[in-house]
Amino acid sequence: MSPAVNKQQSGEERLIGRYFAPLAKHPGAFGLSDDAAVIEPPAGCDLVLKTDGIIGGVHFFPDDPPDTVGKKALRVNLSDLAAKGARPLGFLLTLALPKEIGDDWLAPFARGLGADAETFGCPLLGGDTDRTPGPITISIAMFGAVPHGQMLRRSGAKPGDRIVVTGTIGDAALGLKLRRDPDCARRWDLGERERDRLRDRYLVPQPRNAIAEALRRHASAAMDISDGLAGDLAKLCSASGVAAEVGAARVPISEAARTALAKEPVLTETILTGGDDYEVLACVPMDRVEPLRREAAAADVAVTEIGAVNVGEGTATFLDAKGKPLAFAQASYSHF
Amino acid sequence: MSPAVNKQQSGEERLIGRYFAPLAKHPGAFGLSDDAAVIEPPAGCDLVLKTDGIIGGVHFFPDDPPDTVGKKALRVNLSDLAAKGARPLGFLLTLALPKEIGDDWLAPFARGLGADAETFGCPLLGGDTDRTPGPITISIAMFGAVPHGQMLRRSGAKPGDRIVVTGTIGDAALGLKLRRDPDCARRWDLGERERDRLRDRYLVPQPRNAIAEALRRHASAAMDISDGLAGDLAKLCSASGVAAEVGAARVPISEAARTALAKEPVLTETILTGGDDYEVLACVPMDRVEPLRREAAAADVAVTEIGAVNVGEGTATFLDAKGKPLAFAQASYSHF
Repeated sequence: MSPAVNKQQSGEERLIGRYFAPLAKHPGAFGLSDDAAVIEPPAGCDLVLKTDGIIGGVHFFPDDPPDTVGKKALRVNLSDLAAKGARPLGFLLTLALPKEIGDDWLAPFARGLGADAETFGCPLLGGDTDRTPGPITISIAMFGAVPHGQMLRRSGAKPGDRIVVTGTIGDAALGLKLRRDPDCARRWDLGERERDRLRDRYLVPQPRNAIAEALRRHASAAMDISDGLAGDLAKLCSASGVAAEVGAARVPISEAARTALAKEPVLTETILTGGDDYEVLACVPMDRVEPLRREAAAADVAVTEIGAVNVGEGTATFLDAKGKPLAFAQASYSHF
Repeated sequence: MSPAVNKQQSGEERLIGRYFAPLAKHPGAFGLSDDAAVIEPPAGCDLVLKTDGIIGGVHFFPDDPPDTVGKKALRVNLSDLAAKGARPLGFLLTLALPKEIGDDWLAPFARGLGADAETFGCPLLGGDTDRTPGPITISIAMFGAVPHGQMLRRSGAKPGDRIVVTGTIGDAALGLKLRRDPDCARRWDLGERERDRLRDRYLVPQPRNAIAEALRRHASAAMDISDGLAGDLAKLCSASGVAAEVGAARVPISEAARTALAKEPVLTETILTGGDDYEVLACVPMDRVEPLRREAAAADVAVTEIGAVNVGEGTATFLDAKGKPLAFAQASYSHF
């Protein structure tokens, strides 16, 4: 009891001061000491806005390393900015924490988040922290910039465009299977390195922000692959009012995925529909494929042509080696 | 099973299409059909960024009317923009829904949210919807605009400034007490209308966006009152490096609060520290108090002078009728 009310430092303020204020290096974040943040939008640019959340027990395992959880929360949003051709400006963080979450979790979580905020040039601008009786819930709202009128849409694909993807597809979905059933490693004949690679691809996606500008200049449509290549390509085709034809064997997969697939050919479906890839799917006019590939290679990002856009009505067809369409039980991941 | 993959409408897409796409009227929201939204920032303006979440069982009761939950989620963020002198541009919505939440909850929730988005000129720009094993968790990230360099801070208060608040203080805290213990109505001698008024003030705050511009032109510092007037004023004093002296009897309270206080004088502490007011607390140079009051009155917002800013070190003192400092057990609400 004190007659003059001092600013009592609450548990929430201690937590913010200790773990998150050090991440808020942008001058407009005011060290998280004000009610809101302020940024001056870059001249001539539009703002690209995105929010994506991850929930313990839904999008990550409660015992995943906290630093990778922090990275994943940020990277699933960075991946959207990359596919939209936008460069990151910063993010807001909403954390709902169950009471068993203490410093031993928060310290590495904030460390992972902070390292990525540096790596991707995307500072923490503000946030909100609450207790929840439920699981850890992390929601990030991210802001990026593109030159006015130039955000890459899902809807710009044209018949004749080539379909490309970055990196390799399916690793995260296989990593998730491994996470759920470690015995898969033996069944799939994976070495330790291959197993770890798939697991790491599930834990920490690799967003392709390094080629955001090249995508913006060369692609006609793009999105990131979060719910599975097959379903996401169908969404892009639907938005663009076109059809897509993909050679399943042309879809780039990692050595580890190739090893697993050789043992269990049915994994083709997991690879093409499992999701959590956070690679970019783009449609690119034919004469722009090589320039895009070259510029991406200079940024250490592989870009692989997997098929073509045709006249049609929002369908995506995946052909096997004999030119026969593959059928999938479920082309796309859905929470509902 | 279909060989050509169509864009299958998932449960999530049905939910978004039915309840949230109709709210996404801004052209840059693309009817929620793309991965991100895009807005052109207003020329000469800074962007003000804010996020605040509310959780079932923490910030609202699971059986609160869903339309009021939607309104509250938006309004707690609108209130921050008002206090920062910013006008709303739009918001992103992250929803985590337990599986028992169905159309009977979502329809009125979206209706309440949509009505307020219209009222406050703050369109839905994008969002994310997930299942959670925990309680309903609603996180909103909101964007506003202020003329470059003019966001109202907590840190601008100067000795000699007058301290003002909008509306009446303490209603929501009393409404929460009533919500927890309906017998309070009898003890406090409240009529039905008074009881409903306090309850409504808890359910649906009244953010003061109508006077955001007037605040920006006249105030030297401001914040919205969410964690209790006493603690929030101490935070503002701490950020500004000043002291505040407030006459407790000058703090404007509603008729209902006055009735309750007459029966239970100890409620003074609830009123001054309970929080959830979502009124604006501002420091205003003496010669600006009248212009602010006049302009606010024209917008139907009462502005009341409650004290003064002095030289000092981040303390707020509340004096009783005899000029004796009041002591509070806890000046400010904290989740941790």
